[in-house]
Amino acid sequence: MTRVAYLGPAGTFTEEAARRFGIEGAQYVPVESPAAALAALDAGEAEYAVCAIENSIDGAVTTTMDALAATESARIVGETELAIAFAVMTRQGHKLDDALRLATHPVAHQQVKRWIGAHAPKAEFIPAPSNAAAAKMVADGAADVAVAPERAAELHGLEVHARGVADAETARTRFVLVAKQAASPQPTGNDRTAIVFRTKNEPGALVRVLQEFAARGVDMTRIESRPTREEPNTYDFFVDLAGHASDAAVAAALEAGAERTTEMRPLGTWPREGR
Amino acid sequence: MTRVAYLGPAGTFTEEAARRFGIEGAQYVPVESPAAALAALDAGEAEYAVCAIENSIDGAVTTTMDALAATESARIVGETELAIAFAVMTRQGHKLDDALRLATHPVAHQQVKRWIGAHAPKAEFIPAPSNAAAAKMVADGAADVAVAPERAAELHGLEVHARGVADAETARTRFVLVAKQAASPQPTGNDRTAIVFRTKNEPGALVRVLQEFAARGVDMTRIESRPTREEPNTYDFFVDLAGHASDAAVAAALEAGAERTTEMRPLGTWPREGR
Repeated sequence: MTRVAYLGPAGTFTEEAARRFGIEGAQYVPVESPAAALAALDAGEAEYAVCAIENSIDGAVTTTMDALAATESARIVGETELAIAFAVMTRQGHKLDDALRLATHPVAHQQVKRWIGAHAPKAEFIPAPSNAAAAKMVADGAADVAVAPERAAELHGLEVHARGVADAETARTRFVLVAKQAASPQPTGNDRTAIVFRTKNEPGALVRVLQEFAARGVDMTRIESRPTREEPNTYDFFVDLAGHASDAAVAAALEAGAERTTEMRPLGTWPREGR
Repeated sequence: MTRVAYLGPAGTFTEEAARRFGIEGAQYVPVESPAAALAALDAGEAEYAVCAIENSIDGAVTTTMDALAATESARIVGETELAIAFAVMTRQGHKLDDALRLATHPVAHQQVKRWIGAHAPKAEFIPAPSNAAAAKMVADGAADVAVAPERAAELHGLEVHARGVADAETARTRFVLVAKQAASPQPTGNDRTAIVFRTKNEPGALVRVLQEFAARGVDMTRIESRPTREEPNTYDFFVDLAGHASDAAVAAALEAGAERTTEMRPLGTWPREGR
């Protein structure tokens, strides 16, 4: 049995992503947040955690990044990307245009606002802790319409009024598969390597690190900063590099980059999905 | 009369920040989001907008950044920083340790999680659109406990159980004062300049821009990236530089940097508060 912790309850996009990794003998364990999924790894209560890390509309999933930065042993070993389109659901026989209370997760709300304004114009937004929880709120009568993955309608016996709802066609979320002190997956020729680092708080310090990557032709596919929470105006920088950590150029870039930082930690190296 | 749009309702930290700018003849206009505050500028419904832009615990306020990127004419003309500590409130005569539903803004929730876990261990988190709205949810019976500025308890007749609540002592939020097509404030010797830019999606493109700043001794005090929402894996980069846009080094850095980008827009230059 291989326990896979994910942001629950059953019916979330994270559950869908977790199932796409096709882990043999998987038992899916719903937890309340990405941080709780990573904590389950640390506590030995799960072998894997699946967390959303980036959304093409809303950007970095900061709770996941902060939780990754806080753990020493977690390593990303895989990724998968889901097109995020929602089903719109009510209790059986209820109408959309009469609905007064709309429940969904605030990130989902950002992605369907215009559609909802046109089709359920009277509905006031009630933030829910997850999309799946929003469906349960509708089933329980605490809201009239939910925006959630279609599977949530099945789980709660709701009526689906529309599928594939999203204001922007490119809404995609990338999820990562995380393991504790895992051996790195082998290079595939199309890989990604993630690190988190801090620099001295002095002019040019960040640029000097990034130059070490650029000078070796290593492409940075993403950079994000998060406050360290220790000293004001200091940041952890999260960088994704194209390539496997064992590639000669990447290995040299990491070694040279690390000398320009006050602290650098690996977050994993894994096969890239798609481009 | 000078209309100042801010994230309402009355009693939010944003209102407190707006009042600190000491704008003569100000009429404070509550709106529903930072984006709505900037939209009020564009529509000529307000002369100023006040928006949270960065929190020392939770990082960038992404809704503000996205709204700034979306407007052509808004310019930041000032900043102020508030220490963020919350009051914890219930309806009169209710207890904390029995509370089942905790309402607050998700950013506030990040800042009080540990305290709430210790003092209201049964409370499940319900995200609210603002802290002041969370207080109203408690007054209306839609939640049991709210985490909000103390002024919200007064406004809604709630009982305050604790003041100055924050998990980390350094929780501070920086707010900006935004005007439409405003003349830049004069240099003070301690200023900040903000820009947003895009680069070609090719290796080293970002580093080449940042090198133009570093080469001229211009300190980058902050860098954030946000998805463009137009093409996957493309980003708008938000950079704050130390110095006034009219300083020789900053002006030269901006000019040279702009040539390395596909698009660069100024977001303002203004006196820095504190360090």
